[in-house]
Amino acid sequence: MRLRNLKNATEIMEASPYLIENPKDYLGKTETLFSKVQPLHIEIGMGKGDFIIEMALKHPEINYIGIEKFDKVVARALPKIPEGLENLKIYRYDAFDIASIFSHEVDKIYLNFSDPWPKKRQAKHRLTSPVFLEQYDLIFKDKQEIEMKTDNVSLFIYSLETLSQHGYTLSLISLDYTKDLNLDTAVSEYEKKFREKGIPICHVTAKK
Amino acid sequence: MRLRNLKNATEIMEASPYLIENPKDYLGKTETLFSKVQPLHIEIGMGKGDFIIEMALKHPEINYIGIEKFDKVVARALPKIPEGLENLKIYRYDAFDIASIFSHEVDKIYLNFSDPWPKKRQAKHRLTSPVFLEQYDLIFKDKQEIEMKTDNVSLFIYSLETLSQHGYTLSLISLDYTKDLNLDTAVSEYEKKFREKGIPICHVTAKK
Repeated sequence: MRLRNLKNATEIMEASPYLIENPKDYLGKTETLFSKVQPLHIEIGMGKGDFIIEMALKHPEINYIGIEKFDKVVARALPKIPEGLENLKIYRYDAFDIASIFSHEVDKIYLNFSDPWPKKRQAKHRLTSPVFLEQYDLIFKDKQEIEMKTDNVSLFIYSLETLSQHGYTLSLISLDYTKDLNLDTAVSEYEKKFREKGIPICHVTAKK
Repeated sequence: MRLRNLKNATEIMEASPYLIENPKDYLGKTETLFSKVQPLHIEIGMGKGDFIIEMALKHPEINYIGIEKFDKVVARALPKIPEGLENLKIYRYDAFDIASIFSHEVDKIYLNFSDPWPKKRQAKHRLTSPVFLEQYDLIFKDKQEIEMKTDNVSLFIYSLETLSQHGYTLSLISLDYTKDLNLDTAVSEYEKKFREKGIPICHVTAKK
């Protein structure tokens, strides 16, 4: 489905039971959005949603929230969600302000194929920059876990450094994870394209 | 100079003022080997010595010990050392037992182009395996610093994980450091060959 304009996007968003209109209203009480109290995993920059929808289907024992800042992208994801999926919600929100929508209630963050912001002066926009890592400290419940995939080696190496320097311990590091690791994971639209082209995908799990 | 037999090697070693015959005798008193009390940096697996000799010449304010387990390799290194270099000594010793020759007196360890021991069952032989990292904890004085270079990406990724999991914070990570970083370093025989062939060299500094 191709979205011709923002009006279409708004209509789709208004009609979806999965999109939460005012995420700030649920700060500190995110669990009230779900039918079951269980671990909360979020994906920051979920894009068109393939990854988080697949994860939610595979893991009914976990609650998921997909976060995406662009209306048109959110509107592409929403129609893909199967009816009656109780453990998935979608936030249209800018992650730069993520500590205003979660307060010590997240168990795991997924970062998949995040924008690399390649120029040095843009580094603070990267989702693994110290600015973001500080925000994440405020949203994690207890233990902290970030699982990252990217095709961008420079962003990957940058992230290994920032995560390590922010106190995370690194595991499952790979520059080509589909060859090196046997992970229980899901495949985003980006990842599908990269795999088809034979582009290696980097992976790391960071915990503290 | 090509060494035809071990007899030549023994003769060269016996004649050198730089080779310390019984490193165990200096356990806990390594500083008595040097004319000045100053920081101690060691290279484990110094090979033919080009790296550590260059570093010793560049940094008279630091004491250096190069460690190498094979007689014939040590014998290739010794004749290269310029006369009167007061801040360099050589140990012919197996690093597996390194805690029997240093006791909380090392400030920095260099690992350059270490044997990758590629098979999984050989992993414990890698100089960044947990077995070795535990030994290093016993030889470091206070702060711990390991600086590593390798052309072997698998060994590099393995090392990022083991170092991180052993409590080290990682910095100056690069998969091609001569392009990415501007380091005050020296170039070993191996590195020279790799550079000539255009093979990228990985680098990391790990501190705790």
